Amino acid sequence: MTGRNETMGERAEAAGVSPDTFERALAEFGDLLGSEGLLTEEGDVGQFRDPFAFPGWRTFEPAAVLMPESVEEVQAILRIANAHKVPLWTSSQGRNNGYGGAAPRVSGSLVLSLRRMNRVLEVSEESGYALVEPGVRFFDLYDHLRATGSSLWMSVPDLGWGSVLGNTIDHGMGYTPNGDHPANQCGLEVVLPNGDVMRTGMGAMTNAKSWQVYKRGYGPSADGLFMQSNFGVVTKMGLWLMPAPECYMPGWLTLRRDGDLELLLERLRPLMMEGTIPNQPMIINAVCAASAFTPRQQWYQGEGPIPEAVIDEIAAQPGFGRWVMRFALYGDAKIVERQREIVSDAFGTIPDASLTFSRYDGKALPELTNPHERVQAGIPSMDLDQMTRWYGGEKGGHIGFSCAAPITGRDGAALRDLVRGRLNAAGLDYSGVIVVGRRSMIHIALVVFDTEDEAQARAAYDACKALVAPAAKQGYGEYRAHLDFMDLVADQYDYNDHAQRRFNTLIKDALDPNGILSPGKQGIWPKGVRVE
Amino acid sequence: MTGRNETMGERAEAAGVSPDTFERALAEFGDLLGSEGLLTEEGDVGQFRDPFAFPGWRTFEPAAVLMPESVEEVQAILRIANAHKVPLWTSSQGRNNGYGGAAPRVSGSLVLSLRRMNRVLEVSEESGYALVEPGVRFFDLYDHLRATGSSLWMSVPDLGWGSVLGNTIDHGMGYTPNGDHPANQCGLEVVLPNGDVMRTGMGAMTNAKSWQVYKRGYGPSADGLFMQSNFGVVTKMGLWLMPAPECYMPGWLTLRRDGDLELLLERLRPLMMEGTIPNQPMIINAVCAASAFTPRQQWYQGEGPIPEAVIDEIAAQPGFGRWVMRFALYGDAKIVERQREIVSDAFGTIPDASLTFSRYDGKALPELTNPHERVQAGIPSMDLDQMTRWYGGEKGGHIGFSCAAPITGRDGAALRDLVRGRLNAAGLDYSGVIVVGRRSMIHIALVVFDTEDEAQARAAYDACKALVAPAAKQGYGEYRAHLDFMDLVADQYDYNDHAQRRFNTLIKDALDPNGILSPGKQGIWPKGVRVE
Repeated sequence: MTGRNETMGERAEAAGVSPDTFERALAEFGDLLGSEGLLTEEGDVGQFRDPFAFPGWRTFEPAAVLMPESVEEVQAILRIANAHKVPLWTSSQGRNNGYGGAAPRVSGSLVLSLRRMNRVLEVSEESGYALVEPGVRFFDLYDHLRATGSSLWMSVPDLGWGSVLGNTIDHGMGYTPNGDHPANQCGLEVVLPNGDVMRTGMGAMTNAKSWQVYKRGYGPSADGLFMQSNFGVVTKMGLWLMPAPECYMPGWLTLRRDGDLELLLERLRPLMMEGTIPNQPMIINAVCAASAFTPRQQWYQGEGPIPEAVIDEIAAQPGFGRWVMRFALYGDAKIVERQREIVSDAFGTIPDASLTFSRYDGKALPELTNPHERVQAGIPSMDLDQMTRWYGGEKGGHIGFSCAAPITGRDGAALRDLVRGRLNAAGLDYSGVIVVGRRSMIHIALVVFDTEDEAQARAAYDACKALVAPAAKQGYGEYRAHLDFMDLVADQYDYNDHAQRRFNTLIKDALDPNGILSPGKQGIWPKGVRVE
Repeated sequence: MTGRNETMGERAEAAGVSPDTFERALAEFGDLLGSEGLLTEEGDVGQFRDPFAFPGWRTFEPAAVLMPESVEEVQAILRIANAHKVPLWTSSQGRNNGYGGAAPRVSGSLVLSLRRMNRVLEVSEESGYALVEPGVRFFDLYDHLRATGSSLWMSVPDLGWGSVLGNTIDHGMGYTPNGDHPANQCGLEVVLPNGDVMRTGMGAMTNAKSWQVYKRGYGPSADGLFMQSNFGVVTKMGLWLMPAPECYMPGWLTLRRDGDLELLLERLRPLMMEGTIPNQPMIINAVCAASAFTPRQQWYQGEGPIPEAVIDEIAAQPGFGRWVMRFALYGDAKIVERQREIVSDAFGTIPDASLTFSRYDGKALPELTNPHERVQAGIPSMDLDQMTRWYGGEKGGHIGFSCAAPITGRDGAALRDLVRGRLNAAGLDYSGVIVVGRRSMIHIALVVFDTEDEAQARAAYDACKALVAPAAKQGYGEYRAHLDFMDLVADQYDYNDHAQRRFNTLIKDALDPNGILSPGKQGIWPKGVRVE
């Protein structure tokens, strides 16, 4: 085994594995995977750390990285890990950098990266679905659809480099009518911690014709159990794709005043419930909108959070506002036209709001120049990564604080005020993003910072952490969390003295008695292990 | 304890409980629940048998019935059952008679009936949801909505006497745009076999504001695990309701030839995928259509299955056809009108098909006379119970054989031919029902018979059973099953040597080590117990 160094051995010790045991396990992993499938060099392993943590912190550091190419290799890895009780941390692509990327909760874990399992196994034009492996990126699936002349549209998040499967099982979101990704998942293949391979739903029947079209099966459905979870390694996933619409009509609504957010949410809620707006709109504030196209320097060079007067200045730019909502309509041209009228009537009652639409032929889509319009058409890109460069140029980072809430003006205002107050008090700008679903919204504080400024990075991490308990006190729970406060968020889920945690622990112990799979993921720890 | 008799004690022995133990458990149940909550008289207990089984068969017979009124009583029942290792069989209302009603898989089990936990706990007009207990019938929720002047519509199955919660967690279906009931569930409260009370999703946080609006939570989602399951007792459920539409437009499509079913399914699939038809259409054959309004006698008095010539005669009646599809459009009047045009264009290419629509004001709905139009407006009734009286008048029964399939002409024809062939060979009529979802359909053989004709009843049960393996061989799995062939269906889910069964058993043993909860439900048996 070339390239191993003491630091790696020491790191494994942090996960409770002795250097001897680690050495033996690593030799077996090397025999199984070869040099392509086992990364031990510092330069390679470093790619799987929390990408935005200040290097000196030494948190969430993997000991090595395993990169299997097949389900059989995943099974073999689990056998070796069980035999030596070596903890693994599964990631598909591990590109969700705002939550810690591919890095493990427990330093010294081996990252089980599924990036090399990257085949699009099937696309059904007839029934509108794809079956993918975990390493398939949004870019890959998009390229596959275009290369095969498919008439189907996919749904993508703001950045296209992540795993379709990984995003979905982490409760990720996109912005077409199929933007609630977990709701559009249909069928999983899972390798359980004991190495057994299971298929969910109709896939539990050999050669079932309905694995990717009928979501449930016979008896209990385990799909949800493998999302945001450390109960298994998901190796295949079906997902639903939408037929290309005759008409694609992205819309922009800009609001002049900060307080208009409440009115917007009240007008928007019925449109979401009745489906007049079929996709997942995103509402962003002026700071967030500006960060997609410009560096902060352009607007403000002073100390402390960006002042209200400067935000008003940003908001007054053409196409900007104190809040801007992007959304889109899809389908038959006449129906889209009528939806446009209904939406216009609803938002027309918001004083000084401006509403604009673009119209495209969905079956022969031209090159779209606006990255937001591309995202809502399911076209992956990296353009919006610009947002993280607000403070730090190329060295910008971000961390997310993300709460679920009902779609009401009260809830929008409460979250905005709580988050803005705390972030500004910590000297940070409030970059607010609200993604709206059928009956709920996720309020995301996109806390951006300069990763080379340790004090600012620390302030960003700490400010997010400090928001968790106050938000819970008001009834708002995070829908996912950065490694740094996964446990703290889990603590807030306290109904009946943490009944859900007792349940999760019971399941964890039954499925993974040696506690090898992603210990600490979403606050779920194996028996006898508790790392703070 | 008055009213106990030896038969009941003997029955308990069938479940492996000694008469002494049963006696002690029953005394404790009586102390807990009183005479209102413990049914032991033959006349009362008999209501919880398989309602259509021939009485002489003595299958699926409960020993007694427990009827708690609160979550605390459910917890106490589970404690007593664990202490004495007495098996319980949970049912909410237990009205799905085609699958065995409230009857237990294992004779001698105590039915844990939740009919008395029947409160509508909350309806949110603002966010469009209800929170209900398991005893709430579709009738009850409907009455509640009307009594409170609600503007929300619910979704109902063909018969309104069942439990909203029970139907949903058994993967039940309705016929509005919210007709995929499990997909419109949001948040559960579950009493685990050990008596612990857990809330899923955002309900895992005390006082969370999003329990009924955001479907997932933080970490794994267990909701699906408690559907068609014996892992817990579901005591509360959130479900989404739809805003009353401006326009409600039920439609009927009738086909002249049997073979037109294939063409219909091909035309229908894109309309379902793109959402032009937003509800769950139901396609029924002539026999099924006739059975909703008339007795079989009126058409045919001979021996054997009803001949093709007679079916053609039925199909030639006004409003009938070889196949008839009911479906509906909902929403803004102009959008509905355009949807009507698109649907008309699509079905207009089917030779000799006839398409008719009715139009109603959804906000001020008149009294609807057609039971099918009521069902698609979410108005519960018992009118369609008429179907079971095809052969037997008031003593009619039915048993369902229900497979999931993709929405294609090939699959529709394959299931029709398989099921019709087998049923006709057994001397039974083929009453075919296809319920269509977004990307899949459920083909239901509604096998009706005269419950007082033992030979016919036996033939019906046996014919359904005999269909299970041949259907699986063609790739079609049952989405639920009658008690009589729950195990046989489970056997077909055989991927990787029944990996799903191994998984379910592992979970079962972890959650319910004493095996007290609904042993045998959907083929899931506790450790060391296997009753054939």
